Amino acid sequence: MSILLSGRWPEAERDQWLALLSAALPEERFVLAPEPEVEIAVVANPAPGALQGLPRLGFIQSLWAGVEKLLADETLPPGIPLARMVDPAMNEAMPQTALWAVLGLHRGFFQVQAQQRRREWRQPAQPRAAEWRVLVLGLGELGGRVAQALAAQGYAVSGYSRSPAALAGVRCLHGGLEVLDAALAEADTVINLLPLTAATRGLFDAARLARFKPGAGLVNLARGAHVQEADLLDALARGRPGHAVLDVFQQEPLPAEHAFWGHEQITVLPHTAAQTDARSAAALVAANVRAWRAGSPLAHGVSRERAY
Amino acid sequence: MSILLSGRWPEAERDQWLALLSAALPEERFVLAPEPEVEIAVVANPAPGALQGLPRLGFIQSLWAGVEKLLADETLPPGIPLARMVDPAMNEAMPQTALWAVLGLHRGFFQVQAQQRRREWRQPAQPRAAEWRVLVLGLGELGGRVAQALAAQGYAVSGYSRSPAALAGVRCLHGGLEVLDAALAEADTVINLLPLTAATRGLFDAARLARFKPGAGLVNLARGAHVQEADLLDALARGRPGHAVLDVFQQEPLPAEHAFWGHEQITVLPHTAAQTDARSAAALVAANVRAWRAGSPLAHGVSRERAY
Ligand SMILES: NC(=O)c1ccc[n+]([C@@H]2O[C@H](COP(=O)([O-])OP(=O)(O)OC[C@H]3O[C@@H](n4cnc5c(N)ncnc54)[C@H](OP(=O)(O)O)[C@@H]3O)[C@@H](O)[C@H]2O)c1
Ligand SMILES: NC(=O)c1ccc[n+]([C@@H]2O[C@H](COP(=O)([O-])OP(=O)(O)OC[C@H]3O[C@@H](n4cnc5c(N)ncnc54)[C@H](OP(=O)(O)O)[C@@H]3O)[C@@H](O)[C@H]2O)c1
Repeated sequence: MSILLSGRWPEAERDQWLALLSAALPEERFVLAPEPEVEIAVVANPAPGALQGLPRLGFIQSLWAGVEKLLADETLPPGIPLARMVDPAMNEAMPQTALWAVLGLHRGFFQVQAQQRRREWRQPAQPRAAEWRVLVLGLGELGGRVAQALAAQGYAVSGYSRSPAALAGVRCLHGGLEVLDAALAEADTVINLLPLTAATRGLFDAARLARFKPGAGLVNLARGAHVQEADLLDALARGRPGHAVLDVFQQEPLPAEHAFWGHEQITVLPHTAAQTDARSAAALVAANVRAWRAGSPLAHGVSRERAY
Repeated sequence: MSILLSGRWPEAERDQWLALLSAALPEERFVLAPEPEVEIAVVANPAPGALQGLPRLGFIQSLWAGVEKLLADETLPPGIPLARMVDPAMNEAMPQTALWAVLGLHRGFFQVQAQQRRREWRQPAQPRAAEWRVLVLGLGELGGRVAQALAAQGYAVSGYSRSPAALAGVRCLHGGLEVLDAALAEADTVINLLPLTAATRGLFDAARLARFKPGAGLVNLARGAHVQEADLLDALARGRPGHAVLDVFQQEPLPAEHAFWGHEQITVLPHTAAQTDARSAAALVAANVRAWRAGSPLAHGVSRERAY
């Protein structure tokens, strides 16, 4: 009986997790290499194939919120329950990042910062928050919190999800891409918080970006593969969108020669919108491990069929 | 019987005010040049002496929130009630700017933006909001709202004012400079929203800046003369504070040759933290004009003795 801790991460980070998880689950034995006794795997972006050949494996807990890479591993043992990370620190951090990006776009602070480099003193317009329409794509753990945090600041917020949602102060939309496209055309800021699935990969392509209001902002806090990067460069040159705040990229770290780095209409964040905080997340892993041992329902289970 | 509209502003701005004020006060006659019939002056940073020689002048309404320049004009007729601008749009905008600055400092986004210019991918630390202490100087119309908006985001907020204050979720301090200095030493971000008076001019000098925590942030949203600019440059070189977000300056517009423009530890905003929105402010001027005509109390009167 053991728990395998498997990931591709700096050793110091792995050791921090090991220490916190051991403290939170003193009754468990953690191992860093596969062995036949492994019943549970706690994983952070593990190498493909890392969970093969574990005959007693019965539960996989991801330390990452997005599990699209894990699900893309064809050697992932089928039929075993899989849970993803939903961490209070991440739930707090994502609305902060979204709010910072929306304030920067709404109040013209990104332009003001570009002006500073030119030593140019020019006051931006100051629309009221209620005059600024924000569209949040994905109303799950993170998108739902972001939409409500923005509504609490007085923004005119719409949200888009697959199934119907209801959030106080948010105009909740659902349905096919025609519903999304109509909402895109009205938004001053568009925030992407969708999971990466077959249905959402490459969503922001030339055709969809052409639906944006001139000068609108795109904030991608979900996954790099949601955005067709070459199409985005063309679209920015046409001014729709006028600015993009990107936390995630097709390739991470963003390669040094990538056109995004030096682009005045692009703000590059280093996949830092919301980091899992091992201090709070270890307790959630412990709760799920104990639930699985007790045969109780797991929190934040992933549907393999939906792929999120 | 007339109302003088007097200021130093672009003609288009003056004409917008004139149109909005005329619409809000159809019973009044507005003039742009002094005449003996003037009973009320509505002013926006008027030229010194502009309010001399108006025998019937009985009420001065400033369209600006800060009235230190007006009060410094020795020709200002004494004993006449003076009210300043407190505008709902400004009350909304100032907490937005403060929140943007605090998020940028707390989440390391200013550093991340500097890294982008070097094509450097490095994730900043992500402390919880409750671990981030913000000190707000001045708990009036704007400082009070800023402190509460930050507390609502989960920050650990302290506030400092002259007389005792009580604000939910805010540790309210008052007293002499020794009280301020003790609070400064604990703050991760310091936000200045004091009025400019004899007691607060030059408050941020070498000695006071040396009290800052290493790496802390200074956000000046009040008046440029609160900060000794040469001392700030020296203090930044020593890393206390580590970064400054400045909206106001000794000389505005900030001269093109000023050292602040090209400084990586300084974010320059062009006095845009909170602009008066003529659309909402005209209604407040109208209410005060009618109150004065009716002999009722004025809103937002300025004490000449306190000088704010
Ligand atoms: N940048 C970062 O630092 C960072 C950190 C953490 C997470 N993330 C990313 O954030 C994203 C959201 O995470 P989450 O925890 O909020 O996910 P979640 O709880 O699974 O929520 C997903 C939301 O997206 C909706 N959705 C899924 N497929 C859709 C489709 N085809 N069309 C319309 N709506 C669809 C879902 O609708 P239903 O409710 O109808 O199913 C749900 O509202 C993920 O991509 C994750 O990888 C990024
Ligand atoms: N950057 C911009 O765009 C912008 C826009 C608008 C306004 N402003 C500036 O913002 C500042 C604040 O405006 P406001 O409307 O909030 O002012 P306010 O309502 O008059 O409030 C002033 C606050 O400062 C406190 N105070 C005054 N002198 C003090 C001293 N010597 N020591 C400690 N506390 C002191 C007062 O304490 P008591 O309550 O005890 O009197 C009060 O809490 C002004 O400087 C204004 O010029 C800037």
